[in-house]
Amino acid sequence: MYLIDNLQYANWSEKIFRQMQEGGVTAVHVTIAYHETFRETVANVETWNRWFERLPELIFHGRTGDDVRRAKTEGRTAIFFGFQNPSPIEDDIGLVEIWHSLGARFMQLTYNNQSLLATGCYEADDSGVTRMGRQVIREMNRVGLVVDMSHSAERSTLEAIEISERPIAITHANPAFWHPARRNKSDDVLRALGQTGGMLGFSMYPHHLKDKSDCTLASFCEMIARTADLMGIDNIGLGSDLCQDQPDSVVEWMRVGRWSKEINYGEGSASDAGFPPMPNWFEDNRHFGNIAAGLMEHGFSEADIAAVMGENWLRFYDYNFGPADG
Amino acid sequence: MYLIDNLQYANWSEKIFRQMQEGGVTAVHVTIAYHETFRETVANVETWNRWFERLPELIFHGRTGDDVRRAKTEGRTAIFFGFQNPSPIEDDIGLVEIWHSLGARFMQLTYNNQSLLATGCYEADDSGVTRMGRQVIREMNRVGLVVDMSHSAERSTLEAIEISERPIAITHANPAFWHPARRNKSDDVLRALGQTGGMLGFSMYPHHLKDKSDCTLASFCEMIARTADLMGIDNIGLGSDLCQDQPDSVVEWMRVGRWSKEINYGEGSASDAGFPPMPNWFEDNRHFGNIAAGLMEHGFSEADIAAVMGENWLRFYDYNFGPADG
Repeated sequence: MYLIDNLQYANWSEKIFRQMQEGGVTAVHVTIAYHETFRETVANVETWNRWFERLPELIFHGRTGDDVRRAKTEGRTAIFFGFQNPSPIEDDIGLVEIWHSLGARFMQLTYNNQSLLATGCYEADDSGVTRMGRQVIREMNRVGLVVDMSHSAERSTLEAIEISERPIAITHANPAFWHPARRNKSDDVLRALGQTGGMLGFSMYPHHLKDKSDCTLASFCEMIARTADLMGIDNIGLGSDLCQDQPDSVVEWMRVGRWSKEINYGEGSASDAGFPPMPNWFEDNRHFGNIAAGLMEHGFSEADIAAVMGENWLRFYDYNFGPADG
Repeated sequence: MYLIDNLQYANWSEKIFRQMQEGGVTAVHVTIAYHETFRETVANVETWNRWFERLPELIFHGRTGDDVRRAKTEGRTAIFFGFQNPSPIEDDIGLVEIWHSLGARFMQLTYNNQSLLATGCYEADDSGVTRMGRQVIREMNRVGLVVDMSHSAERSTLEAIEISERPIAITHANPAFWHPARRNKSDDVLRALGQTGGMLGFSMYPHHLKDKSDCTLASFCEMIARTADLMGIDNIGLGSDLCQDQPDSVVEWMRVGRWSKEINYGEGSASDAGFPPMPNWFEDNRHFGNIAAGLMEHGFSEADIAAVMGENWLRFYDYNFGPADG
């Protein structure tokens, strides 16, 4: 079985890469930028290159769907790069192709705030995809960099689905019908996403879960079944948002970056400022088997479990990571 | 016949790319940095990406020897990137791999001055390859970025040949025995280069030619024959240093960059400050046939002409543009 987790941002270590191998994780989409500039994100790639050089028996840099197949054959994990903000392209559309050459495969048009391209889900008003945003979506479509709207506001997300000539992704979020968090998505968004061949990655980040850290596996799997009914079994996968071993200073960087001098708690609160504990059925990369077992328990077929655990993302990678005419 | 010119820095235009096609030029190694920083060189790649997008029937970005074969089959010209200075890696060894990912295939350890890596040919004292230079050569060897010593001083060049575990190149220069210009190379350097599988690209830049702009084709071809005797017929090719259609302001940028407030004439002089006129047998990309004809006239076999005009560089590309373990 292919096992693809389409969003993690751990405090990377050999321990975590060994857990990926132990858990049979074939591919992981990792975040390499939250608020970083172009040059700072290049430095993050350099850090990854050192990991790839040091631990080639565990991980390598993935660029295509075939790299996932190679990872499976070789018992390694393919690491795919993505951004949770368009800050790495700054105000320069030419950097879209530069980033594709450097291996980036997903880029959020926004994190939580207004960006140069679209509106984030914490803004009071959502003015939709900007002039530059329309140009950048076209350029992303041309080179094969996937539009990710995980942190974007409703109108911006619907417009991005409409404007993009290739399917887009919401790499890590859940349906609002199950848990009405600001980061979770409306039925309208999910339906439009599914109808255009887009993908949703289910998040295991407690703020996105019903009952947060106490969310049960059964509830999570029932939510997956209902989402499959809404948007199609072929359009859903995993995007755990696992932030393993990160100090709380990192969630502060995610939320505040350099854009504010004030503290901001995002999905948390003053009394619950740090990373919340993960649910006990998903604490690290060795626990994906629990989800597969939960889906089986809920009555999913073997074929559907394989689709959700990795095959859907693999097919999406195959069609969307290369040039539009490729 | 494969026709590879391993160094040009023209004022690029559709006219020049059409001349490449008309001249049957299979591949060109183009300079994308003289003194540019990392970010400035990325901007130069962006400019090239726009050319590739606009004129795909004429040119595309080459990364491997197989791209040269593809160019030949498709009647296009493959463009390979290189630097005449290590300024695009700044003081950051991690940028070596970043640049390989972005398609750079040659990097000079120095232009004319001392760099962080080695000594250029205009310095009074040549202290050889530096501490960082040794580390960077090893990293270039690892990823498949070729060391180019075209503008380096004698000791630094001999040390680079010795330290590098893969063959190096002198992409554009001639033998000093023929024309003792500061940029031309000693017998010792050429012999060591040939013995280690390295390549010399013959320059048609007038300051590197005997009798400069008046150099005859017969003299140029006789020089090629003598160089083949010195370092082997398999280790020589072309590196024209064609700077077609450039305004004289560009040669000033090459010579002075931002490192001096004073004017410096390099290989020229106050009375001859600009680009010198090219010899009448090589004015642009349509004239490589003259060189092939001149070599035939001089008595070269057809096989040896094919080797010098492109096959030697193609073999060098095949072996040296990928990872050391690839």
